[in-house]
Amino acid sequence: MMRDLIEEVFVDAFGDVQLEDAATLEMPVGKVALSTDTFVVSPLFFPGGDIGHLAVCGTVNDVATAGATPLYLSVGFILEEGFPLDDLKKILISMAKCAREADVKIVTGDTKVVDKGAADGIFINTTGVGAVREGVDLSAANCQVGDKILLSGTLGDHGITIVSQREGMGFGTTLETDAAPLNQLVSDVLDAAPAVRVFRDPTRGGLASCLNEIADASKVSMLVMETDVPINPQVNGACEMLGYDVFQVANEGKMVAIVPADQAEAALEAMRKAPYGENAAIIGEVTEGVAGRVSLRNAFDATRIMDTLVGEQLPRIC
Amino acid sequence: MMRDLIEEVFVDAFGDVQLEDAATLEMPVGKVALSTDTFVVSPLFFPGGDIGHLAVCGTVNDVATAGATPLYLSVGFILEEGFPLDDLKKILISMAKCAREADVKIVTGDTKVVDKGAADGIFINTTGVGAVREGVDLSAANCQVGDKILLSGTLGDHGITIVSQREGMGFGTTLETDAAPLNQLVSDVLDAAPAVRVFRDPTRGGLASCLNEIADASKVSMLVMETDVPINPQVNGACEMLGYDVFQVANEGKMVAIVPADQAEAALEAMRKAPYGENAAIIGEVTEGVAGRVSLRNAFDATRIMDTLVGEQLPRIC
Repeated sequence: MMRDLIEEVFVDAFGDVQLEDAATLEMPVGKVALSTDTFVVSPLFFPGGDIGHLAVCGTVNDVATAGATPLYLSVGFILEEGFPLDDLKKILISMAKCAREADVKIVTGDTKVVDKGAADGIFINTTGVGAVREGVDLSAANCQVGDKILLSGTLGDHGITIVSQREGMGFGTTLETDAAPLNQLVSDVLDAAPAVRVFRDPTRGGLASCLNEIADASKVSMLVMETDVPINPQVNGACEMLGYDVFQVANEGKMVAIVPADQAEAALEAMRKAPYGENAAIIGEVTEGVAGRVSLRNAFDATRIMDTLVGEQLPRIC
Repeated sequence: MMRDLIEEVFVDAFGDVQLEDAATLEMPVGKVALSTDTFVVSPLFFPGGDIGHLAVCGTVNDVATAGATPLYLSVGFILEEGFPLDDLKKILISMAKCAREADVKIVTGDTKVVDKGAADGIFINTTGVGAVREGVDLSAANCQVGDKILLSGTLGDHGITIVSQREGMGFGTTLETDAAPLNQLVSDVLDAAPAVRVFRDPTRGGLASCLNEIADASKVSMLVMETDVPINPQVNGACEMLGYDVFQVANEGKMVAIVPADQAEAALEAMRKAPYGENAAIIGEVTEGVAGRVSLRNAFDATRIMDTLVGEQLPRIC
C-alpha cells in the first residue's frame, strides 16, 4: 500500500524524488549547512497553513539563518494507522507547493506507519541541506554594542493562530499563521548588508528567547523599544485575553537580524522589499550593560526585563 | 528542562554538536549523498542493540549504499511526555558510541515533546550526509547477466530478535540483532572491486524485496542458491515456528552487493575481511529470463519464486 502511495502521491507531488535508499546530489564547492526539525503541530490544518507547509518553511528558514541557500530537503513521515489518505495528499501537495516557492528540492524520504494510538495522526521531520554563501560569518556571538536589531514583521501570528484554533476562538478573527519561507529575504538582506552579525528565526520561545540567546552568546545587553515592534492588533487582543506575553509567542515566518549600525538602514530597506518583509522594522539595539540582559522600554519610558520563556507555553505549536 | 537536558546529555554524549539552528560543515568537493530514516522500533531495547544504535546504523548504511562516505548525521527526537530520562540517556550514549565507531559526527538535532498518549515513548529520525566516492556509479539498474550476488552475512537476525522479544520467546536463545554500521565494509569492497553495480541493505522486506527491486530495475532475472545463503540455525528454527519466510525478514547489519563475475572473488574476500563481513558468501547470480523474476533453488534442485513481501510482516521492526 505504502509503496503505491509513494509512487502515486509522493512522486506526483515532489517530481524527481529519488527512490533509492539515498539521494545523490550536486553541491557547489564550499561549506554546507545542515538543519533538522520535527513537526508535531496540533491541529494539522489551521488558517493560512498546515503541518506540511510548516515543515518545509521551518527547515528552509533554519538553513537560511546560517547564511546558506537551502537546496535540498529530506522528509521523514510517521503516520498513525488509519490516517486519512485525503489529508495526507493535502499535506503532500502543500509541501510540494511550498518547496517550489522556496526553490528547494525534496529529494529523499521515508515513511513509517505505527499502530493506532502510537502516534497522533502524522509527525513530519524535514532535514535541509544548503550551500553556505562565500564570505559570510554569522554567529550569535558576533554582536557588538551599537548594532541594530531588525525584525522582519509582526510578532506572534503563528502561535496565536494555533492556540485560537484549539480554544475555539478562531471564528470571527482573520488571524492566520505567518509561516513562510524566508530564504529569499535572508539572501536579499545579505546582498544589501553583508556585515550582518546573525540571523535567527524567533520560533519556540518567541522574540524574547531568541534575543536572550543572542545576548548571552555575545555577552551584551539589548534594548527593545516596544512601540517599534510591529504587532497585529488581533494578536495583541488575544494575548491580553489569554494571558500570553506576545514576546514569548512562536513565529514561523519572521526573521531577526542583528546588523552593524552603518548597514542597518540598507538591511531594513532590503527586508521591506523582500517577500514577507513588508512590515520589517528596526526594533532596538545592542547596548552596554549586564551580559545577556534584554530589556523592553514601553511608550511611557518604563523599562522591564524581557525574559526567556521558561517551560513550554504552547505545546505542539510546531 | 529540555535545554538543560540538551546541555547535559546531548553535548555530553555527542561532543561538538552545534546548538545553533543549523550546523555549518566542511565538505570535500564532489557529489553529496543524503538519506533519511525514522525509527519507531518496539521494544526500544533488545538483545544486541536499541533504537539509538539502530537509528545510527540504519542511516549510515543507507548513505554507504550510495557509494558514499557517511560524514554527518542530524537527529530529530519525538519524546512522549514522561519518557524516562534514564532510558533517554542510555539511548543517547548508544548513539554516540555507534557514531564514533562509524566515524560520523552527530552535528545538529531537534527535540519535540508531545503529550502522554500522543506518541509511544520515543521516535528518532536520523538524516545522513556523505561524500560520494569519485568515480563510483552505483545503481539498481546497472546489473548484467552473469553478475554475482554477494551477501555480507546471515539473514534474518534483526527481525527474529525483535519478534522473539515481543512474543516472549527471547529467553533461552542467544539471538541478537545484527544492526551494525557497514560503511567500512562498503568502502573495503569498493577498493577491492570498483566495478560493483549496486549495494543495497536488505532491511524491511528482507533479501527477497531487495533482490526483486534490483531485478526489476535492471530488467533481469536472478537465481539464489538456498544452500549458499548463511542463516543462523536459531533464526531458521524461529521462522519455522512462527511461519515467517526468512528471505522476507528484516536485517539491519547486512549488505547485498551485485558484482561483475570477474571481480566477485575479490569483493568476497574484501567483505570477509571487513568488520561484520566474516560470514559473507556468494549466494547467486544474475540470469537471463523474465525481467524482475527472482528464483530460489533448494538443495534438491527444486526452484521456487522468491516474492517481494506484500504488506508489513512485522510492524515497527525498525
